[in-house]
Amino acid sequence: MAMVGGGAGSFIGPVHRMAAQLDRQIVLVAGAFSHDPDRSAATGRSLGLEDDRIHSDWRAMLAAEAAREDGAELVAIATPNHLHLPIALASLAAGFHVVSDKPATATLAEALELRDAVSATDRIYTLTYTYTGYPMIRRAREMVANGALGDIRKIVVDYPQGWLAEPIETEGNKQAAWRADPSQAGVGGCIGDIGVHAFNLAEYVSGAKVAAFVADLAAVVPGRLLDDDSNLLLRFDNGARGALLASQIATGERNNLTLRVYGSKAGMVWSHETATSLTINYLNGETRILHDGADGRSRLPAGHPEGFIEAFANIYRDTAAAIRGAPGIVDALVPGIAAGVRSMRFVERAVASSAARAGWTNLED
Amino acid sequence: MAMVGGGAGSFIGPVHRMAAQLDRQIVLVAGAFSHDPDRSAATGRSLGLEDDRIHSDWRAMLAAEAAREDGAELVAIATPNHLHLPIALASLAAGFHVVSDKPATATLAEALELRDAVSATDRIYTLTYTYTGYPMIRRAREMVANGALGDIRKIVVDYPQGWLAEPIETEGNKQAAWRADPSQAGVGGCIGDIGVHAFNLAEYVSGAKVAAFVADLAAVVPGRLLDDDSNLLLRFDNGARGALLASQIATGERNNLTLRVYGSKAGMVWSHETATSLTINYLNGETRILHDGADGRSRLPAGHPEGFIEAFANIYRDTAAAIRGAPGIVDALVPGIAAGVRSMRFVERAVASSAARAGWTNLED
Amino acid sequence: MAMVGGGAGSFIGPVHRMAAQLDRQIVLVAGAFSHDPDRSAATGRSLGLEDDRIHSDWRAMLAAEAAREDGAELVAIATPNHLHLPIALASLAAGFHVVSDKPATATLAEALELRDAVSATDRIYTLTYTYTGYPMIRRAREMVANGALGDIRKIVVDYPQGWLAEPIETEGNKQAAWRADPSQAGVGGCIGDIGVHAFNLAEYVSGAKVAAFVADLAAVVPGRLLDDDSNLLLRFDNGARGALLASQIATGERNNLTLRVYGSKAGMVWSHETATSLTINYLNGETRILHDGADGRSRLPAGHPEGFIEAFANIYRDTAAAIRGAPGIVDALVPGIAAGVRSMRFVERAVASSAARAGWTNLED
Amino acid sequence: MAMVGGGAGSFIGPVHRMAAQLDRQIVLVAGAFSHDPDRSAATGRSLGLEDDRIHSDWRAMLAAEAAREDGAELVAIATPNHLHLPIALASLAAGFHVVSDKPATATLAEALELRDAVSATDRIYTLTYTYTGYPMIRRAREMVANGALGDIRKIVVDYPQGWLAEPIETEGNKQAAWRADPSQAGVGGCIGDIGVHAFNLAEYVSGAKVAAFVADLAAVVPGRLLDDDSNLLLRFDNGARGALLASQIATGERNNLTLRVYGSKAGMVWSHETATSLTINYLNGETRILHDGADGRSRLPAGHPEGFIEAFANIYRDTAAAIRGAPGIVDALVPGIAAGVRSMRFVERAVASSAARAGWTNLED
Repeated sequence: MAMVGGGAGSFIGPVHRMAAQLDRQIVLVAGAFSHDPDRSAATGRSLGLEDDRIHSDWRAMLAAEAAREDGAELVAIATPNHLHLPIALASLAAGFHVVSDKPATATLAEALELRDAVSATDRIYTLTYTYTGYPMIRRAREMVANGALGDIRKIVVDYPQGWLAEPIETEGNKQAAWRADPSQAGVGGCIGDIGVHAFNLAEYVSGAKVAAFVADLAAVVPGRLLDDDSNLLLRFDNGARGALLASQIATGERNNLTLRVYGSKAGMVWSHETATSLTINYLNGETRILHDGADGRSRLPAGHPEGFIEAFANIYRDTAAAIRGAPGIVDALVPGIAAGVRSMRFVERAVASSAARAGWTNLED
Repeated sequence: MAMVGGGAGSFIGPVHRMAAQLDRQIVLVAGAFSHDPDRSAATGRSLGLEDDRIHSDWRAMLAAEAAREDGAELVAIATPNHLHLPIALASLAAGFHVVSDKPATATLAEALELRDAVSATDRIYTLTYTYTGYPMIRRAREMVANGALGDIRKIVVDYPQGWLAEPIETEGNKQAAWRADPSQAGVGGCIGDIGVHAFNLAEYVSGAKVAAFVADLAAVVPGRLLDDDSNLLLRFDNGARGALLASQIATGERNNLTLRVYGSKAGMVWSHETATSLTINYLNGETRILHDGADGRSRLPAGHPEGFIEAFANIYRDTAAAIRGAPGIVDALVPGIAAGVRSMRFVERAVASSAARAGWTNLED
Repeated sequence: MAMVGGGAGSFIGPVHRMAAQLDRQIVLVAGAFSHDPDRSAATGRSLGLEDDRIHSDWRAMLAAEAAREDGAELVAIATPNHLHLPIALASLAAGFHVVSDKPATATLAEALELRDAVSATDRIYTLTYTYTGYPMIRRAREMVANGALGDIRKIVVDYPQGWLAEPIETEGNKQAAWRADPSQAGVGGCIGDIGVHAFNLAEYVSGAKVAAFVADLAAVVPGRLLDDDSNLLLRFDNGARGALLASQIATGERNNLTLRVYGSKAGMVWSHETATSLTINYLNGETRILHDGADGRSRLPAGHPEGFIEAFANIYRDTAAAIRGAPGIVDALVPGIAAGVRSMRFVERAVASSAARAGWTNLED
Repeated sequence: MAMVGGGAGSFIGPVHRMAAQLDRQIVLVAGAFSHDPDRSAATGRSLGLEDDRIHSDWRAMLAAEAAREDGAELVAIATPNHLHLPIALASLAAGFHVVSDKPATATLAEALELRDAVSATDRIYTLTYTYTGYPMIRRAREMVANGALGDIRKIVVDYPQGWLAEPIETEGNKQAAWRADPSQAGVGGCIGDIGVHAFNLAEYVSGAKVAAFVADLAAVVPGRLLDDDSNLLLRFDNGARGALLASQIATGERNNLTLRVYGSKAGMVWSHETATSLTINYLNGETRILHDGADGRSRLPAGHPEGFIEAFANIYRDTAAAIRGAPGIVDALVPGIAAGVRSMRFVERAVASSAARAGWTNLED
């Protein structure tokens, strides 16, 4: 595997590296971790890479790895959003498989362009929608598909974070800086950063597709250019109603993505703060809780928690299997470009819906 | 105290009785528990009332009690919604104080009529918005008012119930039957039954007022005439955004009303399933939990849970104090007709907003 | 009902009063709330009692009530422990039924004396082991009896409180003062105050009886005369092992009595902090949670929490039924003198076991 | 790194491998995964090892690696207990550093022999007491050391598992088979397998040392030769009291090791089921919760859970640092042979204490 992005100060770059290698299916052999040669070299050396496989220009890296007999087969993209498209296009064109961080691209037009490129190649392209890698999310999805909840009637997905409650993008926080910059993040702020996780998860587990919505996006922190708080009412193609709430100014919240799916027979709750279990509430008022480790989806027995890195690693493990030819993975178990296009369409239309300010009723006259 | 409603099969009638008497400030002395004389008599006798103070006609009861030297001073209304207005009007006119179950009336027009009547009398009128009686809700409200959270930015209130996930109104469930009947419940189903609790609680704690909203109400269970699922995006008069989700078809959910208020300094979570505590999350990522019993708001020391009846009793205790002349209670600590009017306006406009179906964006072309 | 004890500053006196009257089966008509006439009068009047039924001498009250045609039938004892025996004996002798706060008496010898008196009368005698009144505890007990857990193998009961972590008995805390005074509390401190709750609950739910134990009691706070921390290893008559941990110096803990019963098929957890639910964990690793309100044991539907007062009220309600002649209540559903004797024997032998300091192994040579 | 043990069917072998390599400080290069050549080869090849570095005889592997210029520097021991000593002795003698799974050895005598060997070398020897690797455990330890809880008064450690509630050692479960076999496990069953985790954790966090105890060990499942349930009363060298409960027949429990430390100012709770947070309860009744990710101890920001593998990896990371010469790690931050000797002494004396059956008091005459 060769990586683009993920230099010093990156959050998701190290996650990609730890996850990719956890099961010894994939080995990091090259990287363009930063456009700054010294920074990229420092990262690469700390990872034990050979000097001739550390680059500052990702195009040069692709060329070098493609030219080697023992070159990387897979490119991991862990850059800000605006670079996702060119790196993915070039990687696919050079014959690499691609694992890209979400969102697929910075705009819908880019996502459509990438979809064409993916369609035209036999290379694998997957997106690290991390939460789809959690064993209990996959079990939830199967249970819904098998009718364990009956007909799905209501879907609520809620993703509160509080780390952008203050304008830390102006105070040297690298993570915040690019996310708050439209030229790097794209048209969506919170909606594009975590709203897409929530959107993707709701569809992934429920099997229903969002058909229509009303969006209310706000840039709450003064001076911020992109939304940092996003609230939507949803209607799904099967008739279910619901809501999607995502926020990065929910002060004090860490990362408690929660999904609730209510059917005619039972309701289901999964929360990232208790990611290793899945709660089902039945019509008769009883609750059943399933725990990780009891089926074959986990590395460890029950009671030995796996977390974010392991969920991420599941996506890499499955991508590796797809690269080796396993069927039924991409666009099914693991999100691919189809999910990427849906998410970008969702982001752009949510921004437009919010700007239109239609449908609001005043409470007072 | 004289009670109207609350005969056999009632849920809230016994709650009013237990709550009113818990602190020995109020004694139930008369009742018109049912329009069926036998049923009313059976209830009254089981409560140890004297026969001449048990009625089936609430107008007769008001007249009889008003005529007695030792007659009741207070009327408790625990009937279906459509009777709230006539009983309240007649009670006030006869000189009684009134504690009414929510919502104030079945329609906004009725609520406005009642407001005029309340304005024209010196009698006390309060509404049992139960959740405002919880000690931790009152503490939360004070903390917000004192600036403990900073500027309020986002308010999410979520009220899932699952008891109407099946059409039990057609299967002999008395509670469900009147709530599903527009002639008894009014224009709102779920929105009028529990949505108003959520609406009132959000305003009560945050101190902000809902200024505008988009509503999506649905009658999910086939054949149901009133909404059983209600989802709204909210904007508040202080600029805060938010959402209100209320459902009675959230299968398996019991009664887990949850309120989250996020400010610039901290975020606050209160949930009915853990009603005796209040969680505050701070910018630095630490959580603080306050527990009942540590301040003077509870009857019992910490670790001795008080519940729904005790919260209800707090409203009665405070109403009794108001009757005795204590200032600053009605329309402040305890909701009165002002909150009743706001709630009914909210219900009617939510129904209209939902019917208008404005502002929706399709995700697919 | 006539009450002895429960004047100003009492914790448990008001609980007895609220609980006794919650279901309108019992009415408080007289009281000797304090040996100080002014204090007793103040309490009695605040409760709306007639002056001639307020006493400072409990013997006088018993005589007066016994002499009245409309006199009380039931005496509630809410005094420090050393007065339990004389009041209970005199009440029974005068023909009253008795509800006594736990422990039954201050010593085992007293408990045996009281047992003889109870045996010799047809009056009802019950003990307010509060936790046996919780609906979920009663459901747990039935499930164990019905074999839902299989053979019982291990029982752990843990009762941490922190309110005596500082020497507040010397700082004017009336509750602490008598509990820390051997002349009022008896031979046990923590073990007699809350250890007996834990002991009784373990036997009540499991159906097994403690056969033997090793006890380690300590007076942790300097200057304290009675134990404030109690730890015991247990063996039960059915072969099960277990432990009982009770503490009043578990700093910061409120009142989180927790019982765990493990059988050959499943394990069960009940905790006072989540008293309205019962958790069962099965061999296959799944968890099932039962909630209050789904069977007929609660006053309110699911999701409307009942608490400490309601659990206490269940004991009063059942005692009232027993007084009216219902069979199978005393010494079965509601603890009576048999449980009282067991608890006092447990306390005395635990104190002796701890003093003997036998069986300890040093880890270092 | 070269590994002994950890072939197909092993639980802890893969954990060692994933943990050792998570931070790219250590690379697995050789292994003797099973004494069966085919099984060892299968494991080694699945891990991508070269054939000449896969062995079935661990002595041969040590010799081969010692002879290579690029040979492993570190040996990881993931075998049943009875092999820990010979492998550790031979590894140290051949100049390897050692990371051993716990317990250090199968007997106290062996542990003392190993202590001498460790003392006589400059090689690093560490024990994977996993729970000491959790960031919140390390933070808890620092807080106690800094006086945040005041004087430590009570320590309760509770480790319930249920996976041995049935005699699965006779039904082909490899994990259970060796643990239930005294010739492989040593003198302790549950006490040696998980009791030592609990013992070590209590001392690690509290800074106090167990001075004396009473033990009650039982083999609950019929036919089992070693204890599967262990209960002990503890006294610590600083005067604190406490208890240690460990069980593998706590049906339905997964792996919920819980530690509570009560001091004169505050009490602390850490539970493996919520491993990423630490709860502190204060004298004034307030609760404070600290979360992973807020200090520098975690790989990921707050709200991104790390689990068992990551905790294990922290021990490897620190061991690697110690190998490179970092001071203050072994026997301080990471347990070494001193903790190993203490644990084995604890196991042997607990078994003897239980067999002596001293100090028990009958409740009935």
